[in-house]
Amino acid sequence: MSVVVAGIGETPMGKYPDRSIYEMIREAGHVAIDEAGIDPSLITAAYVGNFNGQQLLGQGHFGPLVMETLGMPHVPAMRVEGACVSGGLALLQGIEAIRSGRHKAVLVGGVEKMTHQTTAAVTGALTSAMDIEFEAHSGLTFPGAFALVAHRYFYEFRNVQREMAQVAVNAHDNALLNPTAQMHKAIDVDKVLNAPRIADPLGLYDCSLVTDGAAFLVLVSEDLAPNNGHRQVNIIGSGHGGDALTLHGKDSMTTFGATVRAAKQAYEQAGVSATDIDLAEVHDCFTITQIINTEDLGFFEKGHGGDAVAEGRTARTGDMPINVSGGLKAKGHPIGATGISQAIEVITQIRGGGGERQINKADIGLTHNLGGTAGTCVINIFQGA
Amino acid sequence: MSVVVAGIGETPMGKYPDRSIYEMIREAGHVAIDEAGIDPSLITAAYVGNFNGQQLLGQGHFGPLVMETLGMPHVPAMRVEGACVSGGLALLQGIEAIRSGRHKAVLVGGVEKMTHQTTAAVTGALTSAMDIEFEAHSGLTFPGAFALVAHRYFYEFRNVQREMAQVAVNAHDNALLNPTAQMHKAIDVDKVLNAPRIADPLGLYDCSLVTDGAAFLVLVSEDLAPNNGHRQVNIIGSGHGGDALTLHGKDSMTTFGATVRAAKQAYEQAGVSATDIDLAEVHDCFTITQIINTEDLGFFEKGHGGDAVAEGRTARTGDMPINVSGGLKAKGHPIGATGISQAIEVITQIRGGGGERQINKADIGLTHNLGGTAGTCVINIFQGA
Repeated sequence: MSVVVAGIGETPMGKYPDRSIYEMIREAGHVAIDEAGIDPSLITAAYVGNFNGQQLLGQGHFGPLVMETLGMPHVPAMRVEGACVSGGLALLQGIEAIRSGRHKAVLVGGVEKMTHQTTAAVTGALTSAMDIEFEAHSGLTFPGAFALVAHRYFYEFRNVQREMAQVAVNAHDNALLNPTAQMHKAIDVDKVLNAPRIADPLGLYDCSLVTDGAAFLVLVSEDLAPNNGHRQVNIIGSGHGGDALTLHGKDSMTTFGATVRAAKQAYEQAGVSATDIDLAEVHDCFTITQIINTEDLGFFEKGHGGDAVAEGRTARTGDMPINVSGGLKAKGHPIGATGISQAIEVITQIRGGGGERQINKADIGLTHNLGGTAGTCVINIFQGA
Repeated sequence: MSVVVAGIGETPMGKYPDRSIYEMIREAGHVAIDEAGIDPSLITAAYVGNFNGQQLLGQGHFGPLVMETLGMPHVPAMRVEGACVSGGLALLQGIEAIRSGRHKAVLVGGVEKMTHQTTAAVTGALTSAMDIEFEAHSGLTFPGAFALVAHRYFYEFRNVQREMAQVAVNAHDNALLNPTAQMHKAIDVDKVLNAPRIADPLGLYDCSLVTDGAAFLVLVSEDLAPNNGHRQVNIIGSGHGGDALTLHGKDSMTTFGATVRAAKQAYEQAGVSATDIDLAEVHDCFTITQIINTEDLGFFEKGHGGDAVAEGRTARTGDMPINVSGGLKAKGHPIGATGISQAIEVITQIRGGGGERQINKADIGLTHNLGGTAGTCVINIFQGA
């Protein structure tokens, strides 16, 4: 059963402490539903990604909240949560609902509201994505966890501090051409290297953003594919990989098993390999993470992700453009919506709607979304018809 | 594709402030996996219900946490959340994963740890199941919301205060025979009626419990059905109903549309009607809720659920035994695990393993799990082979 993307919609990403979740859900959700061009009553299920609503807003139970806000309260819906991969999991559940033939049209989306809280409160809430007893209660935070990963990578392969800085520069360069992005500010490698340290070797510009935003997709089966003037985009392969929640429970700190297992499933289902991918949005919660991800996805050899960055291969104009949107680093990281927002960039590029940041060839694209310290990974592969 | 229950396991329900979530997960999870009698490596996905871990423990991302704790860290897993129906949603996702043919064996479960916190903290966290802006921030709590429902029911039909008390008495009577139950204490109608008021007309004994516990199931496809000495139990129908999150957004406060819609799906898929059901575990977060649920499920006419209680029809020895386990009211309400724990009672009764509380005829049983103020409902129908 083919899975067709019928409609997409997202809010601008940014710091909007005064925007309500209701407003963001309506803005993104209605655009996606309208673009799908189907009778909304054909939508018979919804899957919503949200990570920190309970801790930062006191709000859970986002399934019916989203559907009531969109004026479709009778549609059964559920929240799925896997920390930063919550949006990816919502998308995956929607894909499987269509692929199994159980539903003909579903809404998938994510929403997160974070910037009304202090950085300390947000950092504290984010630790609920790691193991509290073995890690968070010992004082580990997410920048700390990925700083350990970076140091281990430096030890096993080589120091890629300068290439990490270039990852940040590429992200900011791309975001400058993305009106939806949170960050519109050119930076250079020196600025990244000289920025305040957050957790050595990660400086301020090595870390992704705290973001408010929402993103929605309508997925349909082939027979409901809309004729709305856009190139049709199909989802041809998906993967869901698991790994230990803790760092100490993983086989490796520099190869993320969750990514490797999800990629294997997704490539096999799609019938493509890493070399067939024209562009990818990968989970750059930190700059080191992007380098590791591009290796785990098979784009570059293990230990050589930094070389690819240094050679310009991952830039917008390179042969393997990564995070043309600006990524989590500069488009933004509205956690529960991030996996959906990544998909929207890939779909937009395949449709040829990337404007000034449109890449040359965009027929097959991939999204890679990671939860926690790589405890969960969802990968999806999109192809233009 | 048939869905077969291969293994079940749950902790005793109760106040265990010193038990860790890891300990509860291991205790319930390993029993379910061992009973399934299959090579654990056949389990290729897991779905975990948890509601309040982020607020009461600071812990989210329960998918990989559970699988790492059970020594199977590579199995992809996700948390699903719909307030008090989180366990039911996890079960539903597992059922659909098997029914679609996508997986041959999955683990579904739930865990909740609550009693280490104060009642005030728990009550506050529970409001994340309702709409925060229109309801919680206006001072509404869950007892308050269902007190409004009860008053409206009294207004539209008749005062069932005494029948509500009998619901509580039945629950306590049943729990006395359930070694897994949290509450082992006989009560009578006068005690319920004279108990301190929580939110009029709901008194202390009209409210379900705050509970620590975990419950797990292994579901498999027909070809992996175990030969473990137990009568085989199949899941023959499922339903997922949605409704507005808010009370003001619903069509009715005394007929829960989410239940009605989920029941229609489940009965149709199973090819049975309400009169075919031998026993049911229904969501008695409050005594009034049980009365409304039994009407919405079609067991009794609208407005006559109280009569059925008064006539003894819902007692363990009645013609429509409800909550033989003791229900949320007396077995306990470990929120994310509740929907799974309900299933375990129905499966146990169909297997004939109910001990002193075994009912006479138990071939087809139903579980009804509700989230928030009836914003989400999951219903499953089980049949003995």
